[in-house]
Amino acid sequence: MKKHLFHLPEGIVYLDGNSLGPLPRAAVSEIEQTTVGEWGELLIRGWNAAGWFQQPAVLGNRIGALIGAAENSVVVGDTLSIKVYQALAAGLNMRPDRRVILSDSGNFPTDLYMAEGLIKTMGRDLELRVVAPDAVADHLDDSVAVMMLTHVNYRTGQMHDIEALTKRAHAVGAVAQWDLAHTAGAMPVDLTALGAEFAVGCTYKYLNAGPGAPAFIYVRPDIAADVDPALSGWLGHVEPFAFDPAYRPAAAVQRMRVGTPPVLQMAALSAALDIWDGVSMQDIRAASVELSELFIHEVEARCPMLTLASPRDPARRGSQVSFSFSDGYAAMQALIARGVIGDFREPDIMRFGFAPLYIDRDDVMKAVGIMAAVMNDRLWDRPEYMARKAVT
Amino acid sequence: MKKHLFHLPEGIVYLDGNSLGPLPRAAVSEIEQTTVGEWGELLIRGWNAAGWFQQPAVLGNRIGALIGAAENSVVVGDTLSIKVYQALAAGLNMRPDRRVILSDSGNFPTDLYMAEGLIKTMGRDLELRVVAPDAVADHLDDSVAVMMLTHVNYRTGQMHDIEALTKRAHAVGAVAQWDLAHTAGAMPVDLTALGAEFAVGCTYKYLNAGPGAPAFIYVRPDIAADVDPALSGWLGHVEPFAFDPAYRPAAAVQRMRVGTPPVLQMAALSAALDIWDGVSMQDIRAASVELSELFIHEVEARCPMLTLASPRDPARRGSQVSFSFSDGYAAMQALIARGVIGDFREPDIMRFGFAPLYIDRDDVMKAVGIMAAVMNDRLWDRPEYMARKAVT
Repeated sequence: MKKHLFHLPEGIVYLDGNSLGPLPRAAVSEIEQTTVGEWGELLIRGWNAAGWFQQPAVLGNRIGALIGAAENSVVVGDTLSIKVYQALAAGLNMRPDRRVILSDSGNFPTDLYMAEGLIKTMGRDLELRVVAPDAVADHLDDSVAVMMLTHVNYRTGQMHDIEALTKRAHAVGAVAQWDLAHTAGAMPVDLTALGAEFAVGCTYKYLNAGPGAPAFIYVRPDIAADVDPALSGWLGHVEPFAFDPAYRPAAAVQRMRVGTPPVLQMAALSAALDIWDGVSMQDIRAASVELSELFIHEVEARCPMLTLASPRDPARRGSQVSFSFSDGYAAMQALIARGVIGDFREPDIMRFGFAPLYIDRDDVMKAVGIMAAVMNDRLWDRPEYMARKAVT
Repeated sequence: MKKHLFHLPEGIVYLDGNSLGPLPRAAVSEIEQTTVGEWGELLIRGWNAAGWFQQPAVLGNRIGALIGAAENSVVVGDTLSIKVYQALAAGLNMRPDRRVILSDSGNFPTDLYMAEGLIKTMGRDLELRVVAPDAVADHLDDSVAVMMLTHVNYRTGQMHDIEALTKRAHAVGAVAQWDLAHTAGAMPVDLTALGAEFAVGCTYKYLNAGPGAPAFIYVRPDIAADVDPALSGWLGHVEPFAFDPAYRPAAAVQRMRVGTPPVLQMAALSAALDIWDGVSMQDIRAASVELSELFIHEVEARCPMLTLASPRDPARRGSQVSFSFSDGYAAMQALIARGVIGDFREPDIMRFGFAPLYIDRDDVMKAVGIMAAVMNDRLWDRPEYMARKAVT
């Protein structure tokens, strides 16, 4: 739909935008303008004159518009891990008489790790209860303080029923916290209608804001004024430049700001968000389903050794398709060497993301053609493809 | 010394590098290369092929070399506020039987705010005891778990005796945590000889890494393997790409990493650190003292209405000079309008930073000439200079 707005290397089919979105062409000049025209020329004056100081709120509102959040309910900053921690700490403080954080084994590990760290830090008798993805609803009872889930499973692409689980969590008096890392920019979500207390997400996947782009956090407006930010940094203070010795939280979600925001990364995010102006998330979702269905159909027809690891029903699947294959790591290396970039997740998952902003049916057909050659001719079976490296 | 390596706007004398350092010229191409050549061309492969993943450790080591830290004892990431929280949480866990965090009223507010938030989160019977800067030594006793101080007072430039206080803290069994925000890149410090358990700092002041540049944290090598990172994110895991359901901390200071690092900001930091290659921190300090002494001498001679708010003894002063003046806010606006950029801190402090990498005696004389005109002719006494804006 918007392929011409992205820098896409010649000869590459990029099916890994679910891990790191490609470079929006306009980001290059936006970053340069921020670097030279603002940092270089304005120096410290950039905080006011170039609006750096307000950017976390401005960008938060723009992201909010993509996820059904009201004005002034989303703010940008830090990393997703940090925002998970803040949301969870706030949620636990809302239910001081309950001891369970309910999550699932399909959650992204950092969400679980941050919860572990928070439990240790709080020293309260808390339990992180991690159940199978399909068992979450059955484990929602009145011991649960916070239901902390990621909407779309990073390995399989399986999608939770976000409305049903939020409703069920609220029915038992639990706080609902959603990680929208694989949701924002991939499909419609209406946080206002959903009623979940907290949501967090990252901007470097489907939102295309670049490596290490800042995260976002949503707090439901009616509770924001009572929420405790836990990480109470000076830019979450109601009046940071009063240099007040005591912390007084800012209004609403602004209190979730912590330290000095990353101005260069925010410039990239701003350019990335420009692309979303006027894009319908319903259209994106429809196109993503179409591309994913085509991909599954073609791969299953032409690569019989691959087993679908994602739900077959598109209504239960995010914007990615995963296949399992015992030598999946090597197979993915062989694909990447031939210009089809997906990624691998332990133990045997080959992941492919479909971002209709810059992927079309021709890309899918081209990718499958290369996959068929690699798989059927066992092109992956070479020592150089077997050696494991860190991959994000 | 290295003025030609910086982008300095025509007609400006920049005495606010203690708040935000100027743009290193080489950062422009470094950022562009990272944006287009790495993000654009390598896409997800940049994490390995361009070394993004290792950058927090690589840059940490380069900063470590400027503050006397051993290899693999400093890591880059997040904001200073977050790193203060991690260090303090770790320090408190090292002294579970003690209840006092000792700090001073000259500490930067976010350090105190983060401590407040941590105390609330921990729920232990902890106290943040904030005393006058000169009273810290007298309050060090065996109730103190962590002495948490900023080396150089952000308002007055007054410098703590870092060696004496660390020694005294250790003598009473307290953990020593230093914020080096106004130290790194301004003067020599030898963390190895000092023996403090933790140090944190930012890179956007004297290190010139740009607005929102990441922070750093140092953990003394002999304790690093036992330290609890509190914010236990996936990139602090010993094996992030194993996607282990349970958190197992990485070796040494690497466990203080949290989430995905800001790749574009790290590119700027890398270019900024290149300038420090071969620079002696002793020479920087000597030049800073010379410039500061000249500034004080000239301002006192020519602007009698300004009162020195910094220690007169250079050995007790950081790399900034502060004067108090009842209409300091307006006076600073008038100076900025005439190309002399310092900043203002409530209630009446006019701050001027001296960074010898790009400031010389001619700059100081030019700045004082403009100050004398502004002050003696009451050029600040205009409504447009009185209206307060947020300033960092």
